[in-house]
Amino acid sequence: MSGTAPGGPDFSAVDTPIGVVDLERARANARRVSDYAASHGLAWRPHIKTHKSTRMARLQLEAGARGLTVATLHEAEVMATVTDDLLLAYPQVSEPRVARLAELLAETKVDVRVAIDSVVALDGLHEAARRGGRDVGALVELDVGLRRVGLPDVDGVVELARRVAATEGVRFDGLMFYAGHIRGGGAEADAAMLVLAGRLERVVSELAAAGLEPELVSGGTTPTVWRSHELPHVTEIRSGTCIFNDRDQLACGSAAPEHLAYSVLATVVSTALEGRAAVDAGSKALAKEERGGSGYGILLDRPEVGVVALSEEHGMLDLSGTDWRPAIGERVRIVPNHVCVSVNLQPDLVVVDGDRIERWPLEGRGR
Amino acid sequence: MSGTAPGGPDFSAVDTPIGVVDLERARANARRVSDYAASHGLAWRPHIKTHKSTRMARLQLEAGARGLTVATLHEAEVMATVTDDLLLAYPQVSEPRVARLAELLAETKVDVRVAIDSVVALDGLHEAARRGGRDVGALVELDVGLRRVGLPDVDGVVELARRVAATEGVRFDGLMFYAGHIRGGGAEADAAMLVLAGRLERVVSELAAAGLEPELVSGGTTPTVWRSHELPHVTEIRSGTCIFNDRDQLACGSAAPEHLAYSVLATVVSTALEGRAAVDAGSKALAKEERGGSGYGILLDRPEVGVVALSEEHGMLDLSGTDWRPAIGERVRIVPNHVCVSVNLQPDLVVVDGDRIERWPLEGRGR
Repeated sequence: MSGTAPGGPDFSAVDTPIGVVDLERARANARRVSDYAASHGLAWRPHIKTHKSTRMARLQLEAGARGLTVATLHEAEVMATVTDDLLLAYPQVSEPRVARLAELLAETKVDVRVAIDSVVALDGLHEAARRGGRDVGALVELDVGLRRVGLPDVDGVVELARRVAATEGVRFDGLMFYAGHIRGGGAEADAAMLVLAGRLERVVSELAAAGLEPELVSGGTTPTVWRSHELPHVTEIRSGTCIFNDRDQLACGSAAPEHLAYSVLATVVSTALEGRAAVDAGSKALAKEERGGSGYGILLDRPEVGVVALSEEHGMLDLSGTDWRPAIGERVRIVPNHVCVSVNLQPDLVVVDGDRIERWPLEGRGR
Repeated sequence: MSGTAPGGPDFSAVDTPIGVVDLERARANARRVSDYAASHGLAWRPHIKTHKSTRMARLQLEAGARGLTVATLHEAEVMATVTDDLLLAYPQVSEPRVARLAELLAETKVDVRVAIDSVVALDGLHEAARRGGRDVGALVELDVGLRRVGLPDVDGVVELARRVAATEGVRFDGLMFYAGHIRGGGAEADAAMLVLAGRLERVVSELAAAGLEPELVSGGTTPTVWRSHELPHVTEIRSGTCIFNDRDQLACGSAAPEHLAYSVLATVVSTALEGRAAVDAGSKALAKEERGGSGYGILLDRPEVGVVALSEEHGMLDLSGTDWRPAIGERVRIVPNHVCVSVNLQPDLVVVDGDRIERWPLEGRGR
């Protein structure tokens, strides 16, 4: 079987398509980023959206993670069972969310910080803290070029930080940014890193001038993870994708083939068409994300074979660059373009540790 | 609230993001395609991958559907509770699948047909029929230009049909094709329809010459649904997307705005950036599928506002073509590019029937 070394795990009883994690590689990836962060005096608070699993989160915490980052209240509730330090990197602005955040404060002892970019979101934190009976931390979010969320100008950041500091129940803990627009190496990335460094210098000095020096400055995405130390004032990195990596991280240069810890196990279902083979991993298993190169993924053990087309239940392997001709029923392992969305599509994970195969639940999936 | 007529349903207690179905529109869509099929002497066996719900399947059957089409054994098992006529439009080639198909045959009275394009898949049917204790129908699949699955040449179809007819436990019921490469109207589509018509003439006449006249010829996708009668020999259409429709069907011309029965309810979470608003429906709710035009969706009630960027938990609305400036906390309804993959991402569906709001389970989701 392609994707399995002789003497490796036996997937024959595993139904496909299904996400598979190489646990030894995931462990090594966690150690690698943790060691990097420690060597530069940075904390590592990985975003768990990549794996959505409490056991994988424990592995990160054991490797030295300071706490965890989450995007949703569901993820926060699930991860509150494994850490007492959570960053909720998403504004909570409607009543159902405020109520749920209040409950998290009331029913756990977790230190919760929330990223905000508006007075409405600040008001929500104030209300959640009042109902929850204890303080909540706030990080003011700065847009650094992705144009998604975050305040675009330094004055706006200082103004919101002032309001946070004056709001009962809400602690001003610092600054958050997400440089998702910077793609690793190259001249363009170098220039963007310099612009970002200048921006961070300015916002931190303006905050300090206003008596609001940030204790935490949270950044660090996987494409630029190994360059996090180039940015001034950053105290922690949230890089999460680096636990598994994917085809896009190969393209960004943040990961090498030996760092690929996740793939989707699939079965060849048709070879009727010349130069192609259809597998049962479609967009419902790999996700149709156009990043990391043309197509939607590559074979783990035959990177010259790409997935050129995806429909919901079909992935089309392009055999034009290989002499390999798979048989119907043969198993392959596909590295998706974007691992986080692929993991979110799995019912659970097949976790391979040497010859042992386990199923790990994805408790953080869903809403 | 955008997306709600005065006196319409009250979504304030509904957490977002979540898929919402306008039941009156879904009912009208089902009647429309059923009437069209009946007026041309075609059977309608809708693909349920679009909705994955037994209640929505019942609605289609009540509107006149002959049976249902499914892609996975899980969908087949679920839909076997509401119909006795199933087309499993996917080859079943590995042992776990054969065992599960045998169980479906043994434990239900459903008439099951399976589309195949290889001897391996035929052998699987033979084995499933043997273990299941009764016959299974086979449709031989012809590739008509999508290059996904299906035999590419007429001789191959005739040869496999011959083998089916000679295989114990497997009934040769006819032909299946999926013209997913044809996009509705226009000169290119007209030409492709003519090529397809010629191809169908030829394969049916060759089958007839071999004494294997197909009883069923199954085609009919939503983009070309209203042109199904232009193709010779077709006896049934599988069009499923037309129950809800989406932005891609608007682009194909198979649906008009009043036929849009599905949208994703979302909450505005940030307006920090000029000309944009962030909502909480990201790729985990809408799916990042590049079809139907640029971007990833449009607002149901403000089609001039598009989703220009998606990350997992963020959708970015482009406000450059509108004077409307949403407030944080405001609700919007987004029509995704591709409804089937969006539905697959929902935990369940909010179904609106006049002023009544219900939650319908998606029993066919998952594997």
